[in-house]
Amino acid sequence: MWRDLEEVGRDDDSGGYHRFAWTRTDSDLREWFVGECEQRGLDVTTDRVGNQWAWWGDPDAAVAAGDPGVVIGSHLDSVPDGGAFDGPLGVVGALAALDDLRERGFQPSRPIGVVNFTDEEGSRFGVACAGSRVLTGALSPDRARSLTDRDGVSMADAMRSAGRDPGHLGRDDDTLARIGTFVEMHIEQGRALVDLGHAVGVGSDIWPHGRWRFDVPGEANHAGTTRLEDREDAMLGLAATIIAARRAAEDHGCVATVGKVEIVPGGVNAIASCATGWLDARGTDADAVLRVVSDVRQAVHDVDGLMTQESWTPTTDFDPVLARRLAVRLGDAPVLGTGAGHDAGILANDGVRTAMLFVRNPTGVSHSPDEWAAADDCLAGVAALSDVVSDLAGGGG
Amino acid sequence: MWRDLEEVGRDDDSGGYHRFAWTRTDSDLREWFVGECEQRGLDVTTDRVGNQWAWWGDPDAAVAAGDPGVVIGSHLDSVPDGGAFDGPLGVVGALAALDDLRERGFQPSRPIGVVNFTDEEGSRFGVACAGSRVLTGALSPDRARSLTDRDGVSMADAMRSAGRDPGHLGRDDDTLARIGTFVEMHIEQGRALVDLGHAVGVGSDIWPHGRWRFDVPGEANHAGTTRLEDREDAMLGLAATIIAARRAAEDHGCVATVGKVEIVPGGVNAIASCATGWLDARGTDADAVLRVVSDVRQAVHDVDGLMTQESWTPTTDFDPVLARRLAVRLGDAPVLGTGAGHDAGILANDGVRTAMLFVRNPTGVSHSPDEWAAADDCLAGVAALSDVVSDLAGGGG
Repeated sequence: MWRDLEEVGRDDDSGGYHRFAWTRTDSDLREWFVGECEQRGLDVTTDRVGNQWAWWGDPDAAVAAGDPGVVIGSHLDSVPDGGAFDGPLGVVGALAALDDLRERGFQPSRPIGVVNFTDEEGSRFGVACAGSRVLTGALSPDRARSLTDRDGVSMADAMRSAGRDPGHLGRDDDTLARIGTFVEMHIEQGRALVDLGHAVGVGSDIWPHGRWRFDVPGEANHAGTTRLEDREDAMLGLAATIIAARRAAEDHGCVATVGKVEIVPGGVNAIASCATGWLDARGTDADAVLRVVSDVRQAVHDVDGLMTQESWTPTTDFDPVLARRLAVRLGDAPVLGTGAGHDAGILANDGVRTAMLFVRNPTGVSHSPDEWAAADDCLAGVAALSDVVSDLAGGGG
Repeated sequence: MWRDLEEVGRDDDSGGYHRFAWTRTDSDLREWFVGECEQRGLDVTTDRVGNQWAWWGDPDAAVAAGDPGVVIGSHLDSVPDGGAFDGPLGVVGALAALDDLRERGFQPSRPIGVVNFTDEEGSRFGVACAGSRVLTGALSPDRARSLTDRDGVSMADAMRSAGRDPGHLGRDDDTLARIGTFVEMHIEQGRALVDLGHAVGVGSDIWPHGRWRFDVPGEANHAGTTRLEDREDAMLGLAATIIAARRAAEDHGCVATVGKVEIVPGGVNAIASCATGWLDARGTDADAVLRVVSDVRQAVHDVDGLMTQESWTPTTDFDPVLARRLAVRLGDAPVLGTGAGHDAGILANDGVRTAMLFVRNPTGVSHSPDEWAAADDCLAGVAALSDVVSDLAGGGG
């Protein structure tokens, strides 16, 4: 199963993955998902935004009975030059857990669903968790349709060329009603499980996090003929802001990153007339994150720039009772917060009972070809997931 | 004449020009040039790389007589969002000077040529003065043909789609032999003439200048989940290098600019795994420029990066006897060095007797819509050019 998926969207040079929403590669991944589900006798339904759902049992009968099903899964898309595990581990692991339950002769008292969320990384259109956000209405249909990729193609047109109708986007209560509980398994994006000596952990919450854009002005001029004292070089303000962001993160015990910049006009012999950077700031404590942002804003003002908030998400707590229950079920597994966003977070914010399982990542590296999990740890993750599902979809509730 | 040209390739929002080699806009500019020359009864010949030459008199007869002609002109292309004067002032001014000489009833004893050099700014394919460099052989035909623009279109293909044959590129001795003297008029790219209170100056030399590329390594990782102490963030090394370049320029009395950067992978939530910047360094003294480069190289090494030289041009002296003669002819005009490269510099390096005239630029700004010259100063430039040409193409030699 893993081997079939391994080749799809992989760059031969870097070994990294380029799996972006509504591309040919994405379509291959979707077909792979349908094929695997069909082999297991599961029908796949695709919701209006393109998330794929495969059910063992009748989800609508369960809704009618007031006892909806248990959904496991994650996403198959990737960041540019991403790793093999972020996303696929949760989907492949869900199908493997289902196989495991069937081999054990498990008879679910609630239906079990496996989901492949669409466009989790937002690599193409810039909005992460686009599939779950449209599903819950956190992302409006008009905004979703009008998002464009770097070639100016809108999400609406991209969906159309993949044979989907973007006209029906919007909150989808029927699909949401089928999710009694959602458990997303994911490779850990850090080293906590390595340090703690556990193969599998349980998620407690997603840290508060946000994105800010800052624009530093300059004056376009010739790099060869303009005296230093006559220059207003936006690049210098950008450099100062990048350094200030790192210092602020250290001062307040958070993380802060400038990973994307745009320079105008961007010529080798042209003094920059505008430098734009994006700040990503996160931490365990929302107040501390906002103090980082305040420090960076001051640095941007010091170079006559402007900073605007693009997004802000307060702490997202997963269901604490469920997290404790899963940790106990898994033999006192560690319970960890995470700095990364997930579809699980979007569903949790919409009131769905949600949990996450993390699988140890020895490199601690994420969003890179170096991201990695040992086969034994992946199998431990699958075992944990099937334990959890047998608990949740069994008699207990 | 100026008004017809004004609209070609202008961005309605910024007022800046986007005139790049072998585009539709470039073709419009070339047609404008042909039209103006035809109105004056001048035949236009285009050399193999696309430079356009219009002659008053028979240049080949002059070559045969061992007394080749006087060429004036400049270029019509622009940097991205460039100003109206850099280039066109020299071409329009050359045609106006020719009109002026004819009105005065001047009878040249040597032929007078007007040139529109192709692709001076190198905005599309990255090599400045591509037209004059191919003409002299300073840029090899194979390298020229294989240069690509940001869409991956090669110069060879771009020439083909503009109806030119790129198969015959190479040093062109026949065309070069016709140039006894070349005088390029250009807007000043700085404030020296403002400070000195002169409308027109004469060029002495082009400062030594070069380009270096530096690559700072990092480790791709997730911006939300990677602890500060586990990061190798290439963006921080880039920022430190940008600041070091400015400090080095101040320390050694030169100018240094980082105007272009590239970040990999370049996502908002991705720690940079590689940051590349380009250093442009220039100054009056070659040793001082190289000390700047050495300081920046040290800064790059301090962040485990590498710096490589992309180009280095020592001081280019224009003909000093000619410069003095022109300065005297123009009533003791100031003689100035410049930090900018020009086709005149390429010809001077090839042994052509070459001079430049600069026209006052009150803003001092260049490569920007703010670049400007007063109409009176432009007319003073034209008058100076026609004085100079009447001297050079008259009896004197």
